Amino acid sequence: MFSATTEYALRVMAAMAMSPDALVPTATLAAITKVPSNYLAKVLQQLASAQLVTGRRGVRGGYKLARPSQEIKLLEIIHSVGNLQRIETCPLGLASHGPSLCPLHRTMDQAAATLIQLFEGVSLKSLVDDPLIPNKPLCESGTLTKLTMRGLATG
Amino acid sequence: MFSATTEYALRVMAAMAMSPDALVPTATLAAITKVPSNYLAKVLQQLASAQLVTGRRGVRGGYKLARPSQEIKLLEIIHSVGNLQRIETCPLGLASHGPSLCPLHRTMDQAAATLIQLFEGVSLKSLVDDPLIPNKPLCESGTLTKLTMRGLATG
Repeated sequence: MFSATTEYALRVMAAMAMSPDALVPTATLAAITKVPSNYLAKVLQQLASAQLVTGRRGVRGGYKLARPSQEIKLLEIIHSVGNLQRIETCPLGLASHGPSLCPLHRTMDQAAATLIQLFEGVSLKSLVDDPLIPNKPLCESGTLTKLTMRGLATG
Repeated sequence: MFSATTEYALRVMAAMAMSPDALVPTATLAAITKVPSNYLAKVLQQLASAQLVTGRRGVRGGYKLARPSQEIKLLEIIHSVGNLQRIETCPLGLASHGPSLCPLHRTMDQAAATLIQLFEGVSLKSLVDDPLIPNKPLCESGTLTKLTMRGLATG
C-alpha cells in the first residue's frame, strides 16, 4: 500500500523519537531501521526539506527531530515523502464531473479520507510511548535501544 | 496513495463493466480510460493473468470481463496489480516482535485492514449502476458511453 520510502521515513522518525535530544549519525539510524545507508540518506534529506528533522554534516554530524515528537503527526511524515491526497476533481479531467466525483473516484477518495483521518490522529510520540503495548518500534522486546553519538547500544 | 497501475486497472475494469458482453479493443479502452495504449496493454495482461478478464488477439480482438461485474469486488482488482496486505509479522524481522506488532506497524496494519474492508465491500457493478449518483465512471454526464467492436460512440 505504502512505498518503501514511506515505510522507511516512518521507521527513522520513530528511531529519532526514542532519543529526541541526540544528534544520531545516519549509519546508526540505518542500522536501527534496517534500511540501506544510501537510501536512508535520501529519505533524511526529504525529511529535512520538510523541516521535520535537522541535521549536521561531518564527523560529529547526524540528525534529530526538528520539533517535539508529540507535535509531529504521522500524516505529516507521510506527506513529506509521498502522496496521500483527497481526490478533489475528476482525475480524467471530465468537465461535467469536475468536483462531483463518479462512484469509482468517490470510493478512492473515501479511502484517502479514511487514511488521512487515521494518520492525522497518531502522533510520533504515541508510537514510542504507549504503555499498553510492550513492543517498541525497531527494538527487540525487553531491550531499549539507546541512540548515542557513538552508535547503537542495547540493554 | 495507489499506483497509477492500480488507478488504471480500476478504470479499465469499470469501462468493461459498462458493456459486459462486448469484446472491446484495447485502443477503444485506452481512449475511454485516457491511459496510453502500451501501458494499458500491460495492465490488461495482468488482469488476464488474474483471470479477471478474457481477451482475444487479432483484428477483431479485444477484452471483456471474465465474470459478471456483480461478482468482482474492487479488492480483487487491486490485488491483481498491486499490493494491499495486512502486516502479519514484524517487517524488520525482529524475533521478539513476530506477530505481536509494535505501535508503528499496528497503525499501518490498521490502515491496510480499513482499506481491505472498504474495497471488499464494493462490487464493480455498483460503480456503474448506482442510481443515486448521476455521474458514471469515465463518461461525461448526460451521455452514456457505448462500447462497440468498432470503437466508441456516445449519445
